[in-house]
Amino acid sequence: MKVTVKQASKPPGFVDLLPGPARFRRRLEQTMLATFESWAYDLVETPAVEEVATLELGVQPEMMRRLFKFADGDGRLLAMVGERTVPVARVAAGQMRQWPLPLRLCYLGPTFQGHPAPGAGRESFQAGAELIGVHSAAADAEVVAMAIKALEACGLEGFQVEVGHVGFFGGLIERLEPAARGRVLDALAGRDLVALEEALADTDLGAAEQELMLRFPALRGDTGILDAAGSMVDNPISATAVAELREVYRLLTDHGVGARVNLDLGAVRDFDYYTGVIFEVFAPGAGTPLAVGGRYDRLLQRFGEPWPATGLVVFVDRVQAVMGGLNGNAPAPSRTLVGYGADPAAALTLAARLRAAGESVAVEVQAGDEVALRARGRTLEAERVIFCDDAGAWELGRDGRTAL
Amino acid sequence: MKVTVKQASKPPGFVDLLPGPARFRRRLEQTMLATFESWAYDLVETPAVEEVATLELGVQPEMMRRLFKFADGDGRLLAMVGERTVPVARVAAGQMRQWPLPLRLCYLGPTFQGHPAPGAGRESFQAGAELIGVHSAAADAEVVAMAIKALEACGLEGFQVEVGHVGFFGGLIERLEPAARGRVLDALAGRDLVALEEALADTDLGAAEQELMLRFPALRGDTGILDAAGSMVDNPISATAVAELREVYRLLTDHGVGARVNLDLGAVRDFDYYTGVIFEVFAPGAGTPLAVGGRYDRLLQRFGEPWPATGLVVFVDRVQAVMGGLNGNAPAPSRTLVGYGADPAAALTLAARLRAAGESVAVEVQAGDEVALRARGRTLEAERVIFCDDAGAWELGRDGRTAL
Repeated sequence: MKVTVKQASKPPGFVDLLPGPARFRRRLEQTMLATFESWAYDLVETPAVEEVATLELGVQPEMMRRLFKFADGDGRLLAMVGERTVPVARVAAGQMRQWPLPLRLCYLGPTFQGHPAPGAGRESFQAGAELIGVHSAAADAEVVAMAIKALEACGLEGFQVEVGHVGFFGGLIERLEPAARGRVLDALAGRDLVALEEALADTDLGAAEQELMLRFPALRGDTGILDAAGSMVDNPISATAVAELREVYRLLTDHGVGARVNLDLGAVRDFDYYTGVIFEVFAPGAGTPLAVGGRYDRLLQRFGEPWPATGLVVFVDRVQAVMGGLNGNAPAPSRTLVGYGADPAAALTLAARLRAAGESVAVEVQAGDEVALRARGRTLEAERVIFCDDAGAWELGRDGRTAL
Repeated sequence: MKVTVKQASKPPGFVDLLPGPARFRRRLEQTMLATFESWAYDLVETPAVEEVATLELGVQPEMMRRLFKFADGDGRLLAMVGERTVPVARVAAGQMRQWPLPLRLCYLGPTFQGHPAPGAGRESFQAGAELIGVHSAAADAEVVAMAIKALEACGLEGFQVEVGHVGFFGGLIERLEPAARGRVLDALAGRDLVALEEALADTDLGAAEQELMLRFPALRGDTGILDAAGSMVDNPISATAVAELREVYRLLTDHGVGARVNLDLGAVRDFDYYTGVIFEVFAPGAGTPLAVGGRYDRLLQRFGEPWPATGLVVFVDRVQAVMGGLNGNAPAPSRTLVGYGADPAAALTLAARLRAAGESVAVEVQAGDEVALRARGRTLEAERVIFCDDAGAWELGRDGRTAL
């Protein structure tokens, strides 16, 4: 062990949470888990480390490149998890494959990236839920509504949810050859109209469909856009997407969260992974989505079960940042400070009684006098200050002391 | 992305927690944090990854060898944390160095070992607390008492705490040369009486002190052993240890936890790290301690602040194992199942109302009839089953249905 004094640092990209922000974080976590539980989702815990071979079954190559990876002693290649849907799928199709479907599972835990995107940290905190074993609009709507309810329960204000469907553009470009499809999707994902126009010009898509795709930034709003877009598509995949979105929107209204929802037929995200309804949660002041989710009907089959699924993930750090909770913006707990003149016995007994009654109580770790205790109470911003001496216990107020 | 189906496995040494055990775990965590909070300890969160150079300031070489280590892109050597006292010390002496002393901090999180001791896992869960900036018997007693109260709050039964002091043997062997001291300590730590006798024979320790050390297995009990041992030592360090233990024992009685405490002057643990009172919590059926702690007055100075400190760590997985909570031994949550005949609107509205009133409610993700819903209710062991149709909402009981 070294005995030199040095300025120890934490690794770049990691953060410490001091008491205010740590308490805020914990409250967000608890609120989200309580919401998931109230929707009958069961908590599962998967390791922070998985085999690279397992993660590759579901994690995009781009994300795989970003992970911390290392060999264990036996030549296995391991990685710290960058998300937890794939591990939950492993457990669902593994140890839980005999449970009655649908499975409603939720999780909470740190995720890691060794080489994060610019502006992102290396450790972040994700809370998520998966509804596994059913393909229905009711299931799609449930995870969107639950994401909204969880964020509302946390006290987040002013957020909106963009709900889309990968099948809408998916149907339009399905008959393109892979290279052309890739160029179109890249342009759409990058929201690059010029590149999109060029990519479309090289395809044999009809003029009406090209025009529809070029209008993607305008394909946002309420059900009116479904009517408009629905009348312009003539392939069954896009038509199904429009019909499913219409049903999901109606159910979200039944869930009482319709006011939070915008439909976005122009949304394009991870076509290799998502297979149906997708959504993203945005709030003013947040440059990246606070939560995302959607249908991924092809993942579970890679773990041996042909189950459709949908889910959500909340980026807890981002929610906390938007709510100001990373800067200590959390109500300080109410504390009672107990001191004693000489013998701590009475103070310790009193403290135990107050704690049992729900108070948070600090007892001085050294004997002291009343003046010193008052000063300590001010320093600690204690709600109550109690001094114990041979004559009894005294609550110290601004104007004197009162026998307890 | 691979599309082959395979039997995906988790890495050796890691575990998944299914819903019952995961819920049990979460409840243990919450209970421990609530206890620490009721003793006025503030939660802090440190990263799961630290620089090796930072950890080496406080973590024993033996433990350093066990960690998962990897280089980040910039040539820094990083490790997944194997414990969290050293990171908390980094934060206390870093970002928190202007806070009023003593600092009362607690933490909760996963810890990792790439090459664990036989029988141990690679990921485990630790909850701990640190009382930093004060050297007093009151501080020593506080962390022992709080560890006991936290475990009692979790519902753990039949456990005992062994409280010792590294200064007792420390004073006896202080004037030995390092090699001889190492041999004696190894023999003591290994509880190997033969090796101890041989090691002592090579020293110039007096016969009375040699005899005292050879009696170490018998140096356990109540304050009677302090009287016996105190009369046999003639060096100030050992005498101070006996006096401090006597005071701590009295305070633990004042805390109301004296019945849990055994004194153990024969305890030997990490002499490089611990500097005073130490303790370990044992329960029937547990081969390893469920919690440990003690005074470590030399750690903070390595981070630039000359602060004494004491603390505790609870090995949450071990507590859970002893309580049977790793095998699903957790009360299942009470759930309400809501189904609907055709239109889900009424069911979703009702579910939202029940959730707001505190119920955990699953809504079917497909329309169905009453018979199917009853069967689902039995499968899910639902507490209540409610069916919504055009005529209203009906609670399905054993003998029929009742209008809600």
